[in-house]
Amino acid sequence: MQSILKKEQKYQIIPFTWPKGYKSDGVHAGLRKNPQKKDMGWLYSKVPAQAAGTYTTNQFQAAPTKLTKQTINKSHQLQAMVMNTAIANSVTGEQGMLDAKKMQQLTADKLDITPDLVGVASTGLIGEPLPMKTIAKGISQLELLDNDYVTSAILTTDKHQKTIAAQVEIGGKTVTISGFCKGSGMIHPKMATMLGFVVTDANIQDGLLQDILSQQVDSTFNQITVDGDTSTNDMVVTLANGLAGNPELTTQSPEYEDFISAYNAVLSELAQDIAADGEGSTKLVEVNVENAATHDDAQKVSKAIVGSNLVKAAIFGEDANWGRIIAAIGQTNAKVDIEHTSVWLNDLELVDNSSSANFDEITMKESLKDNKITILVDLNSGTATGQAWGCDLTYNYVRINATYRS
Amino acid sequence: MQSILKKEQKYQIIPFTWPKGYKSDGVHAGLRKNPQKKDMGWLYSKVPAQAAGTYTTNQFQAAPTKLTKQTINKSHQLQAMVMNTAIANSVTGEQGMLDAKKMQQLTADKLDITPDLVGVASTGLIGEPLPMKTIAKGISQLELLDNDYVTSAILTTDKHQKTIAAQVEIGGKTVTISGFCKGSGMIHPKMATMLGFVVTDANIQDGLLQDILSQQVDSTFNQITVDGDTSTNDMVVTLANGLAGNPELTTQSPEYEDFISAYNAVLSELAQDIAADGEGSTKLVEVNVENAATHDDAQKVSKAIVGSNLVKAAIFGEDANWGRIIAAIGQTNAKVDIEHTSVWLNDLELVDNSSSANFDEITMKESLKDNKITILVDLNSGTATGQAWGCDLTYNYVRINATYRS
Repeated sequence: MQSILKKEQKYQIIPFTWPKGYKSDGVHAGLRKNPQKKDMGWLYSKVPAQAAGTYTTNQFQAAPTKLTKQTINKSHQLQAMVMNTAIANSVTGEQGMLDAKKMQQLTADKLDITPDLVGVASTGLIGEPLPMKTIAKGISQLELLDNDYVTSAILTTDKHQKTIAAQVEIGGKTVTISGFCKGSGMIHPKMATMLGFVVTDANIQDGLLQDILSQQVDSTFNQITVDGDTSTNDMVVTLANGLAGNPELTTQSPEYEDFISAYNAVLSELAQDIAADGEGSTKLVEVNVENAATHDDAQKVSKAIVGSNLVKAAIFGEDANWGRIIAAIGQTNAKVDIEHTSVWLNDLELVDNSSSANFDEITMKESLKDNKITILVDLNSGTATGQAWGCDLTYNYVRINATYRS
Repeated sequence: MQSILKKEQKYQIIPFTWPKGYKSDGVHAGLRKNPQKKDMGWLYSKVPAQAAGTYTTNQFQAAPTKLTKQTINKSHQLQAMVMNTAIANSVTGEQGMLDAKKMQQLTADKLDITPDLVGVASTGLIGEPLPMKTIAKGISQLELLDNDYVTSAILTTDKHQKTIAAQVEIGGKTVTISGFCKGSGMIHPKMATMLGFVVTDANIQDGLLQDILSQQVDSTFNQITVDGDTSTNDMVVTLANGLAGNPELTTQSPEYEDFISAYNAVLSELAQDIAADGEGSTKLVEVNVENAATHDDAQKVSKAIVGSNLVKAAIFGEDANWGRIIAAIGQTNAKVDIEHTSVWLNDLELVDNSSSANFDEITMKESLKDNKITILVDLNSGTATGQAWGCDLTYNYVRINATYRS
């Protein structure tokens, strides 16, 4: 039994930087009480960029999420995104949509572009109206700079910024893909995700960006869970402004797979970062499922394990309670060889053919102290694989969420 | 907006007692360390009783659960059930089934009946083999008595026994229905439930008992959740020995609805008792959904709310964070009037037509101190209703489950 082999890597992960032609900024407008904490930000491309998005499937989709979806669907282009934290502008009725549109218009006015090129994203408390005076003040303060302040201006209970950048060569040109996101609680994306933004200077064939995003979101953001709750505001928006000057990328380009690998690395890293920084978490949990009948089965089983409160609490307690992993697997409708399922934890065999492996409790206990726990499951039902990420369930998760509004 | 009206009650809830012809006992055999804690018990009917069961849908169904299902399916009769706590005899391979059969045989020998009339139930840690010497010792100690010791012999992390009895008149005869169960963690029954036993002396038409059980389990045990995890050992077994001497009960009997009401009251009370005693819980949460398009939608929405970690943590924190209730509703695929959804908490209006109701924070905060929280949701999409029960998510839930094996 071997772990999943990494493909040869044709891209480079680099310190966070903006791709060619992007400017941004972040400010404290006054939505958050602490004046040290930025609460509004924006992102701008010198030229209109190809744009694609994925959005929450929660029926109570927030006004900014709905508006951004409508805006992107008009021409599949955006030139700017404006974001705020603290107030989600969700379940705010007609006024919520008017406020989101106002935020879009104010941003367009300041940038002297059409509102149809401006996306809007909000995150924070559900059900409160946006304080529009503060929002207007924030927009008036924003400038077109090279800082990364916007990546902290979207955080809520997150402990740190979540950013990453990758570079890949396409037709002799360096293409940069940069991503940032927020997300800590209410994380259980379904065909959508938390606020995530991925910008690139790649020149990409019309329409292809949405295909790439949708595919890659399925195996990254949609495979994380913190608490099983799907937010009303989730969205990932991706922009490609073409300023890298590479020959137009198509599915036939020789470097297409390299670009996809780099793009996937950006999304995957951000997704793991959200899981690791799940509210109250002390450990990142990665589950790899092998020998599943289908990829869908493998994805389902891996997500069921990272989603189990009991598994999460056992990992917090550094307790190798494998019965809970087995119970989580069995709850799914995936094809499972119930007599020959095996489980490893950090490369130590825990379950051997559906029976306790004779593991050494002391070695296992020591291994459980790591702050990344990797669980590998062999379903003995085929050849497909899948992956998911989550975190442990801790006293701090309860504390943070018992007092969120106060 | 009115709460669900109670139907006229034709049955009486009485202090726990056994129906006619049942004997039982519970002992400390040595499976649990604490000698004060009973860990094995049994239940016996003077005559073979009609039997029916519902069982976990977890693919890793435990050996005792599988064996009891097979046994009941042979002739739809049982005369005895033997139970143990501490070790679940789940994911124990072939030896597990041999052990469950041995437990069945030892019990049959002692009672001088065929093993085909003995059901077996185990609960506790998954993956450990049953210590058969201790089991044999326990069976040798059991007697045919009138005590209720068996109702405590099946508990694990439960804080108290969960018992109830109801009486109803059928054809001039008093019929008693008595139920007991255990369940505190790994509670998210799906078409099945935790260990639950409902015995009656009613004389019931052949085959009807299974229909009644299956129907009633759907609206009671299957509508509770503690942590979203479905156990490998869940089962409800019901026995009817006919010794009340009532005219045979059929769906055409004049008192059929009265019997169903009483039977439902027993299951519903036990289900709520499990939810209220969920691991670490301080509050029982009841959700009633009204004006849903279908009963299924109402059941789904009510269960989504009691299942949301964020709602549960907010209730623990006595925080009227209604956005989380709305987010939980929106996560389902139930038909929802997203502009006209309203929510009440303990009869105080929280959400009015998908906007914050102007509730008084102090009154609401006071109400949230109750140890039973009732949430009422109006979906404005039809006339169907549904109900579910759960509990809050607390530090103690995490503590109990971070250290379960130790």
